[in-house]
Order: sequence, then C-alpha cells, then structure tokens
Amino acid sequence: GPVPVDPSTLLDEEYFHDLADDVLHNLQEKIEILGEDLNVDGFDCDYADGVLTVRLGSLGTYVINKQTPNRQIWLSSPVSGPGRFDWVASRKVWVYRRTQDELVLLLEKELSQLLGTSIQLS
Amino acid sequence: GPVPVDPSTLLDEEYFHDLADDVLHNLQEKIEILGEDLNVDGFDCDYADGVLTVRLGSLGTYVINKQTPNRQIWLSSPVSGPGRFDWVASRKVWVYRRTQDELVLLLEKELSQLLGTSIQLS
Repeated sequence: GPVPVDPSTLLDEEYFHDLADDVLHNLQEKIEILGEDLNVDGFDCDYADGVLTVRLGSLGTYVINKQTPNRQIWLSSPVSGPGRFDWVASRKVWVYRRTQDELVLLLEKELSQLLGTSIQLS
Repeated sequence: GPVPVDPSTLLDEEYFHDLADDVLHNLQEKIEILGEDLNVDGFDCDYADGVLTVRLGSLGTYVINKQTPNRQIWLSSPVSGPGRFDWVASRKVWVYRRTQDELVLLLEKELSQLLGTSIQLS
C-alpha cells in the first residue's frame, strides 16, 4: 500500500515544483540535444506538465514525473525499473533512498550503456 | 538490475502494440469522460505514443505506459506505486504477477477511492 506522508517533513509545494521543474527541464534539454546528435531509431523526448517521456524505440521508454503528494520525482526506467527520488537539500540532488542512486547520474549511466556512448546530462 | 527477457516467450511485437494500444485507448476514453463528469481540480488526461498520463492535481499523477522490450504495460500510481503488467491471454487482461492485480480493476478501485465515487473503466 501507499507510504503515509508526514506533512511536517514535506517540502513547501511551490519550492518542490521549482526544484523538480529545474531538473526535469535540464534533463529535457540535454536529452533533446543527445537525440539530435545520436541517431536513435524511434527517439522522442517530450515534456508536458511535470512528465518527461523519453522514447528510445525498441530500447524502451523512460518516464520521469513529479509526484506532488510525496514531493518526489518518480522514474520508470526500462533498465532499472521504478525509482522514487527525494530532494536531498545538503547535496542539492535527487536521491533514491533505497539504492542511494542520484537521478541524473543514474540516467547518465543507463543511457551511456543503452546507447553505447558516454552521455553527460549535467 | 533488469530482468533478462527470454525472446521465445515474448508476444509478437505488433500484436503486443495492438493489445496495449487497445487498453490504453479505452482507459483514455473512459478517464476523459470521468474528467468531464467530475470536477477534479488540476485534472488532465493525455495520451501520446504509448504513454497515458492522468493528472489529478494535488492527488498525484498516474502514468501508464508501454514498455516494449518486456511486452509489458507499466503503471506508476500515486496510490500503489509502480506495477508491471503482463498480458494473460487466457483471461484477456493485463495482470501484475506479483500482486495478481488486474490493470483496469486496480485503476477502478484506486480512482474510486481517490475521487470518492464509484468509477467504471471497462
């Protein structure tokens, strides 16, 4: 079942949107350039209202979206499956507490592996 | 890590797309009607290229997408988290093997609970 949310530990909603939009926009920008540079069959990158979708044809589809009630960014990855990232203010990064993966680094690692070339997203 | 895919057990890709598009289009249609009937703040339903996104404002965001390499439909739910649904040919439904949840029934249950009214999606 769902994990109960403790309101006292939640980021302010507007601040959450600022932080999350920032990383999602940056990822969109970097991934769009990557799509122009590389020749990935079925490539498409789309951002709308808090949901970033990256289609890599037969390699699968990434979905990265804001989950506002939890103040998290959720990842659906064809390589690592699902992940839920919290903002770690001290490091200014989004971290999946279960694995300690950092969102942008994880995507760099997976996309480099999938596309067979070193990918920089930050 | 990723679960290895055994190609011999995979659905034919074109057949997979037919089956998955069918349930995603049907969900989109039903959920759009629901959005017109109910007055959900921040409601938005969008389908594009295998990704159905249902935004319910502060209640959270559903993403339901095709994951072609695995021939699965993946769900990201603000209530139950992630789920990966396989086609069960004998029952003609998409089932999350870990929980035995059926995709459409699970969404009916969760949306009924979130929106406080009985929702029919089939």
